[in-house]
Amino acid sequence: MRPRGRRPGDEDTRQRILAAGRRLFAEFGYERAGMRAIAAEADVDPALIAHYFGSKQGLLTEALRLPVEPAVVLAAVQRAPHDRMGEELVQTMVSTWELPQVREHFLGMLRTAASHDVARDVMQRTLHESVMVAVAGLVEDDPARRSALVMTQMAGLAFTRYFLQLPEVTSLTTDELVAAIGPTIQRYLTGAVD
Amino acid sequence: MRPRGRRPGDEDTRQRILAAGRRLFAEFGYERAGMRAIAAEADVDPALIAHYFGSKQGLLTEALRLPVEPAVVLAAVQRAPHDRMGEELVQTMVSTWELPQVREHFLGMLRTAASHDVARDVMQRTLHESVMVAVAGLVEDDPARRSALVMTQMAGLAFTRYFLQLPEVTSLTTDELVAAIGPTIQRYLTGAVD
Repeated sequence: MRPRGRRPGDEDTRQRILAAGRRLFAEFGYERAGMRAIAAEADVDPALIAHYFGSKQGLLTEALRLPVEPAVVLAAVQRAPHDRMGEELVQTMVSTWELPQVREHFLGMLRTAASHDVARDVMQRTLHESVMVAVAGLVEDDPARRSALVMTQMAGLAFTRYFLQLPEVTSLTTDELVAAIGPTIQRYLTGAVD
Repeated sequence: MRPRGRRPGDEDTRQRILAAGRRLFAEFGYERAGMRAIAAEADVDPALIAHYFGSKQGLLTEALRLPVEPAVVLAAVQRAPHDRMGEELVQTMVSTWELPQVREHFLGMLRTAASHDVARDVMQRTLHESVMVAVAGLVEDDPARRSALVMTQMAGLAFTRYFLQLPEVTSLTTDELVAAIGPTIQRYLTGAVD
């Protein structure tokens, strides 16, 4: 969807607007964060937001993209032995989530999504599309149910570890999480779930 | 902690303030919801907030109480056969969560907690204390780790079903959730988790 013949500065400008949008959506909520304020924060002309993102909601959709591309997780899990897909999924996702910029991104996403129904719906659609596609690429039957179950467990891990920061959850290492939650994901992907 | 010799109208006044606090914390965030605005919403004198809740943070703590008393869940799970505790926990919690007023309460809690670090910390403490106590009453070893794992799964179920309303998750019935997630909780309570 990117325009052809972009100048070298284009990607930098686009990223500045995206970062400014993320910050202001998270701080003030989707509705209260105005286009002018976002443009000022990014130090660009307000018309450039429409140029790069189409609309405020277009910017929101980009701002709420998952910090880990589902395709990357999918590829790692597909390389794993069939009976170790659950462990590999937990390992790959938690390893990425532990990066400080990813944790920040999560908090911003949640703040933004909690601020307004439009933002919540965009986050819902993003997760629905990306996780559904990724999980459907891994399983042989019932991808809707299996992806639902994977989402309940992994979203809850992210929520309690990075947002709520429950001490019992933050104190577990990645290896401990893989050992404890890996079998859950394995069953949700390949075991009996009804 | 309630004052002695309360008049019959006291509990009604207290509940009105609590409901007003919940509404305004969720709509405007913890910081922006002022004591005067909450008092006006509840149609009471602002001094009564301090009288009943001590402070704005005292009101916040009450506003963020879990909609299901952990002791109630604990009692139901303790009555279940040892190998069906996981199913009973999912059954008891989801049955309560399905009540419309509880779903509303969840959304308000999340909006409030996402609005400010103070509110997030209060929600963290509430969950930490109540869920830890409940799970510790059910397990024989390693209550911190087991309660952490139960929280990751159950918080994620609530988050994806009631806040995000992911269609794959909302389409599952209570019975389907018990069948699919019950064994996860059973393993987290009584199985090998390291």
